[in-house]
Parts: sequence; C-alpha cells; structure tokens
Amino acid sequence: MSKGSSIKTIEELSALLGPGGWIDGESDDAAQYLTDWSGAFTGKAIGIARPTNVAEVQAVLKLAKKESLGVIPQGGHTGLVGGGTPFNEGNVIVLSLKRMNKIRKIDPANYTLVVEAGAILQEVQEAAVAHDRFFPLSLGAEGSCTIGGNLSTNAGGVNVIRYGNARELVLGLEVVLPDGEIWDGLRTLRKDNTGYHLKHLFLGAEGTLGVITAAALKLFPKPMRTAAAWVATPSVKDALAVLEIARNETGDSIETSELITRRVVDVVVSQMDGVRDPMPDTSPFYILMEASTTRKAETGETPQSMLENALAQAIETGHATDAIIAQSDQQRTDFWKIRESSPEAMRRLGKPRITWDVTLPISDLPDFYAAAEKRMAEVAPDVTFQGFGHMGDGNLHYAAYGDRVREIKSLLDKTLYDLVADFEGSFSAEHGIGQKRTEELERYKSPVEYKLMQTLKNALDPDGRMNPGKVLHV
Amino acid sequence: MSKGSSIKTIEELSALLGPGGWIDGESDDAAQYLTDWSGAFTGKAIGIARPTNVAEVQAVLKLAKKESLGVIPQGGHTGLVGGGTPFNEGNVIVLSLKRMNKIRKIDPANYTLVVEAGAILQEVQEAAVAHDRFFPLSLGAEGSCTIGGNLSTNAGGVNVIRYGNARELVLGLEVVLPDGEIWDGLRTLRKDNTGYHLKHLFLGAEGTLGVITAAALKLFPKPMRTAAAWVATPSVKDALAVLEIARNETGDSIETSELITRRVVDVVVSQMDGVRDPMPDTSPFYILMEASTTRKAETGETPQSMLENALAQAIETGHATDAIIAQSDQQRTDFWKIRESSPEAMRRLGKPRITWDVTLPISDLPDFYAAAEKRMAEVAPDVTFQGFGHMGDGNLHYAAYGDRVREIKSLLDKTLYDLVADFEGSFSAEHGIGQKRTEELERYKSPVEYKLMQTLKNALDPDGRMNPGKVLHV
Repeated sequence: MSKGSSIKTIEELSALLGPGGWIDGESDDAAQYLTDWSGAFTGKAIGIARPTNVAEVQAVLKLAKKESLGVIPQGGHTGLVGGGTPFNEGNVIVLSLKRMNKIRKIDPANYTLVVEAGAILQEVQEAAVAHDRFFPLSLGAEGSCTIGGNLSTNAGGVNVIRYGNARELVLGLEVVLPDGEIWDGLRTLRKDNTGYHLKHLFLGAEGTLGVITAAALKLFPKPMRTAAAWVATPSVKDALAVLEIARNETGDSIETSELITRRVVDVVVSQMDGVRDPMPDTSPFYILMEASTTRKAETGETPQSMLENALAQAIETGHATDAIIAQSDQQRTDFWKIRESSPEAMRRLGKPRITWDVTLPISDLPDFYAAAEKRMAEVAPDVTFQGFGHMGDGNLHYAAYGDRVREIKSLLDKTLYDLVADFEGSFSAEHGIGQKRTEELERYKSPVEYKLMQTLKNALDPDGRMNPGKVLHV
Repeated sequence: MSKGSSIKTIEELSALLGPGGWIDGESDDAAQYLTDWSGAFTGKAIGIARPTNVAEVQAVLKLAKKESLGVIPQGGHTGLVGGGTPFNEGNVIVLSLKRMNKIRKIDPANYTLVVEAGAILQEVQEAAVAHDRFFPLSLGAEGSCTIGGNLSTNAGGVNVIRYGNARELVLGLEVVLPDGEIWDGLRTLRKDNTGYHLKHLFLGAEGTLGVITAAALKLFPKPMRTAAAWVATPSVKDALAVLEIARNETGDSIETSELITRRVVDVVVSQMDGVRDPMPDTSPFYILMEASTTRKAETGETPQSMLENALAQAIETGHATDAIIAQSDQQRTDFWKIRESSPEAMRRLGKPRITWDVTLPISDLPDFYAAAEKRMAEVAPDVTFQGFGHMGDGNLHYAAYGDRVREIKSLLDKTLYDLVADFEGSFSAEHGIGQKRTEELERYKSPVEYKLMQTLKNALDPDGRMNPGKVLHV
C-alpha cells in the first residue's frame, strides 16, 4: 500500500466491489496484474479493482478521482508494450475488467453483438459462430486477450487485409470517463452522422482517456470454405506480385497473406517438435496465404480452385517457384504452426533478441526491406536481422538476434525507425505505445501532431489520472 | 462588407490569394457561395476566400484568427443541412476549397490515392479507374460535391453496405487547424498505432474543428462485372429476408440494396419522361439490388448467375413475388433512373413536403416502419408519408407530403424522432447536423455525450471561430 492512499479508501473499495473484487497490491494474487505476460514490464499498485459491472467501474473511478489516484485499465494483460502494467510509483489502482465479461446481446439479423470489455476474444468469436456469424478479429493471444484490450489498443492480427483493424469492427462503445460519468454510446447502427464520432477517441487510446466497458461489434457472414496455400517466392517484390495475382483471381477474397523468411522456417523446424518444412527445396521467402468464401452454395469456383488458378499464374510468371495448397485441415494447421510457433521457437534459440513492429506503404516493402538489411548490417555486422509478417497490410515484425543486441538497442532502434520514417512508415503498426515507445512517439511525430494529442488528453483527463505516463508525456 | 472587418483585412486577403482568389461578399459572384444548392439556407459573409494550396489556407486562417473572424469551410455546397452556408451575422469568411483540387499521388500497388479537398468526387472515382482501381464512395451529387465535403460530412451513399461510410475509406488527412497550424497526417498505411487517431476527429466534424485540405484514400480492386435486379417484395420484413438470401448466395458481394415503395414508382412514372414501371403487376415494395465481382477470371459463377440463384430462392420461399435481372446496361440504367429521379419527381409534384434521413438497427426496420406509419397517421391523418432508401444500412429517407406539412413540421419532426429514439436509431444517418439539426442534437444526445462534444470543440477551437454555430451550441 502506498502512502498516498488511506486505509479508509481501501476499505471503501473493498466494500463496494464485494468478495473477490479487491486484491491488495502486496498480496501474491496481485503478481499477475503487476507483471506483464512477457515479464518485460513490472510495477506496483495499491491494489487490483475487479468490478463486475459498469456501476462498479463508475464507483471506482469516482473514488479514484476523490483520492487523486491513478487508474490503470487492464484486460488480458497480453500486450507487448507495457500499456496495462503500472510503473513503480505505486499511487495507482489497477482496474482489471476481466470479471465484467458478459455478452449482452447478439442480433444476427443486424449483424451485431454487444459485449462487455472483459470477454475473451475467442469467446466473442465463438458466440458469433454459434449464431451463424463471424467476428473476424484474430491474433495469437486470442485465447487469453480481452475484447476491451483489443479495442483499447486497436489490435490488428491476421485478417486485417480483408476486415480492417479492431477499430473498424466497432459500431458503438460504453465508456466510463475519468470523472466517473458513463458515456452510453452503444449504438448498433451502420450510419450515424449526429455530431463527433466519439468512439474513435477511446479506440486505440490505451486507456488514457477513459475506460471502455462494453462495445457493439460488427459481425459478418461466416466463411463457409477456406483454402490455405504455402508458396515459395524468390523475393519480397515477387511476393507482392503473387498477392496481387491472388487478389485479382479470387475476387479480393484473400483473408491472410503472411510473409515468412527461410530463416524462420529453419529455426521453427530445428526448435519445435512435430514441425517440418512443407517443401523439398528451399526458398528465401514463403507466403502463407488463405482465401475464403461466405457463399452457401457449392456451385462454381471454390476458394481452392481460385487459389489454384492464381498460383499457377504466379508460377508461370516466375513470381512463385513452388506452391502447395492444403488438402486437409491437418495440412492447413501445419502451415499455421510454422507461422504461429515462430516467437516461441526464437525464444528457445536462447539468443538475446529485440523485436519491432513496423508498417510501410505496401508498394515500398521491397525497397524498404533491402534498405533495412543493408543499413542494419552496416551498423551491426554481427547481428542477425530478419523481418516477416502481415505483408498484405505492409506490416513487418522485425527481429535482431545476437549477443550484444540489448547493449546496442538504442542504436538499432534509431537506425530502423529513422529508415521507417524516411519511407513515411509507422514505428508501431499494431502493438501500440504503452510505456515502451513513448520516446519514439515524441521523436517521430511532428510537434503539431504531438501537441494535438496532448490537447486531447488535457481536455478529457485534465488531472492526468488515466493510465498516467502511458502513450504521452503530458 | 460587415462592420467587423477592416478594409485593410480585405486588402490583405485579396493580395495573398491573388487574382480570382477573393470574391467580395456583396458581389453577384458571391451568391452561389451564400445560398445552398437547395435554396433552403442563405446567409452573409465578408467575402469568399478561394485558396489554391495549403499555404494559402493557412494564411487565411491566421488572418482570420488575428481579426477574430469566423471561417465557414465549403466544398461543392451540395449538403442538405446548411453546414456550408453562413448565417446572417456576416462577420465571417467563406473558405471555398474548390480551387484546391489536385490529385497529388496515385499508388496502385498500395491501393491509395492522395487528393486535395476541392477535387470533385467523380474525378476521384475516374482517377482510380484510370489506374485499374476503384474508389467506392458514390452518391447522387457525385458530379458536383467535393471529396473534402464528403469527408467533412462523413458521406454515405449507395455502396456503404459493402465498403463503409466515407470515414472508413480514409487512411490519412492534411488539416489546417483553427490557429493556422498545418497537421500533416497524410499517411498511406493500413496499420498505425502511434497514439490517438486524429483523423477521426476531423472526419464528420463538418468543418467545426479545422479545415481538411487533403486526404489519403483507400482504393479497392475494380469491379469487373456487376449484375442489377429489380425485385418485387410484399413487405419490409420480406425485403430483409431477400437481402439475407442474396448475401448468402453471392458470398456477401451485394453492393447496393435500395428499398423503394410503390408510391415512389407511381410518382416517378407520372412525373418523369422516359421512365416506366419495370413490372406488369404492382407490389407494395421493391428492391433495387446489385452484386459485383472484382475477379478477373470469367470462369465459375458470375454476379448474374449468383443473383439469379438467390432470387429464385427468394421467390420460392415467398419473400419475393417477382424479379427482373437487367440484361443490358440500358436496363440497369433504367432501374437506377427510378431510384435517382425520385427527389426530382417529388419536387415536380409540387406538394409541400419535408424529408428526414434516419437509421435503425436493420433487424428493427419492419417494426419501425409499421410503427412510424401508424404514429404519423395518428398525428397527421391528412399527410402522405413514405420511407425508402439504403435498406442494407438500416438507412431510410422519409418524406411527408401534404398542404400543411410545413405548418406542423415541429410536430412531425418530434413524432418521428421520438420513435427513432425509442428504437435506438439515429435522427441523421448521412446528412449530418449543419444548422438544420442542432436542436435535435441537443435534445436526443445524452448530456454526457453532448458535453463531451463541447469539450472537444472548446479544446480544439477555443475561440469558436470554425464554422460557428454549426453542429453544436457551444
């Protein structure tokens, strides 16, 4: 317990949240809320408030205001930039939304679902499927991340090329504001031009402007058939050409297009049990590509036949050298295993590494890729460097491996990010800012843009108590 | 010239904008900028500033700040709520963006286009097509409205069901802020989680927070084949069932689904030359529906064959009573003529009328439609009432005709809008607030939401000089 809080405050919180609603910050149970999933960020808090409904969130925020306490909203705590982890100051409450997790309403005819912030992403996906609908947000942590966290961080993932980022899947929000007022913006409308679109303020704001407590989400028709392909391609430029052919041939029904390097395949095959290279010959790059259809009728072209046509063309034109289309669910799962186990395989290698998450205009990916290889080799010849990721969104996850990468982290960060800035790219594609990238935000944003963000923060949270120190230095 | 402005200010503006850049507010040339397209809104201004580049916009805004003048941003001046028309106070400048209309860059491989605010929507569409791409925003005024106006009002139109509203088609913006600072947010990235997403503040803000001077737009693969159908259906509920069948059968490639009433067909056929009823028998409702594909290959199912299957099913299940699929471009154009000439046909009827633009959750359309008919007939039995529009978005354009509709406008407004509120709908789907709906905004928004909007306005435009009195009472 920090000196800023009184025994009385804690008693009040504990009473209003009921049994299981309050965890003291120094108890063992608090640990998982105070250290993030990766172990990279850790901090202190007076305690963990675990409300079960919006009225309790409101009560916590009102009390926090009265007692001048900071509030750290937290979902599944699976973020990669420390956005949901407190600092060491301690005069804050962690507000875990995990117990506020009901699905409030599904309206299949309106293609909408209203859900509370603490619901696990996978449960939201399953609820949609149970009503013959589809919620397309999909990412590695979907079994443990919460929808509230996904929305507060504007999560990306593997289906962005077709369905957009998390913010594009939201029709309305319920938000508790820093002063404890509840904004009920849970509309389920496809068009609504009645004043400023406030939801976009809170989506992606990482809890610094208020607490998202519920959301009205867009649903889509359920994919009926999906085809997956593993494609060998000689270069990043060729990979983009393959994607373009596939978009044309499949009527833009490509759901996923992941660029994978030879090195990723090597590391995964060597480190993970039961994973093997799908192809006999090696290639510098691969694409894991999926096409799907929501058509119920089984006549005409299927995703599989369309992908076959596309990849035959890609091989004919030299943009691909080989391609395998999954003939079974097992084979499709095997393809995905290579992509999805790569972080774990890299970890098992045991070498120090640092990772980045950048976006470029898609057309600049080949030039950027070449320039990055060259420049990183110049500044750190002993470092192994690689990039792979969501090619169709221009999003590359880079990593550097080598004994001294952590020592020269600032140099590597700056080298890569300066290059990203030259290409008018983004230094944080989908992971956000949190506490990890606040310096970059200040360095790479124009003073006008940074000041605009501060203006918003000061207007909505004048006391600076919402997730203090995250995203912006105010 | 209003008394608040000095001769010196006008001389400065005139000099900085060059020949053709300044129009005195009392000259004949000013009239088109001071009265809106429909003639419903008219006002006064010191003059019309017509900058050709962002530096000139900046200079105008800095001068306006120095001289405490209001600024009314204006595009094609085709809005329906008086958002771009000044009031009668006169101490304002109209800032017409029409001369700032260059297409700055097209990047087909990145599926993006960067364009200045004053470009006509149709020119943007054409520029995309010239590069084998598609910009989907499409609405009646596309030959004269500007992209800047479309974005400032978050325009809707006929393709929203598939591609979203205007704001969803934007990757980045360039905005001149109220103090004359330029925010260069013209990014062309598909993922970018670096702080608050400022573009959404200005999109749909109707020029009350700053002036959008350029935008980076998303492009899409170009539709290769489109099929159009004219479908007779007995009720709104059946119309929704037809849409659902069509979404399923076509793999969600429905681009348009417009609900049209029998009365619209009658009025259009009676008032417009060369328009005829496509069907021999009458039906209470019709749907104008289009499906398209971006597939280049011509194998497999086509939009036409998929729509045929869907409509055969719809007739079999009784949700449709008849359907015609256009066999030629001419027949497709004829279908559209009924939809698009309906405002003009209604005008030619010569009866007093008032119109509304509302959205409901799609699943509530049948109940809302029935309740609205009943309630409007109760309060005004002598008024003819009808609704039609973008069914797939839940968006209905309502109109009332009758000798005394203008006398009882407040009663009709309130009756309809109260009902919309009961169904958690929106009283302005795509037309916005402007000066026409400011009272409704205050009445139907919660105090929390209204105050949040005021907080934003005060934070970004503390002097209240950007499009003063529009959208919000500050």
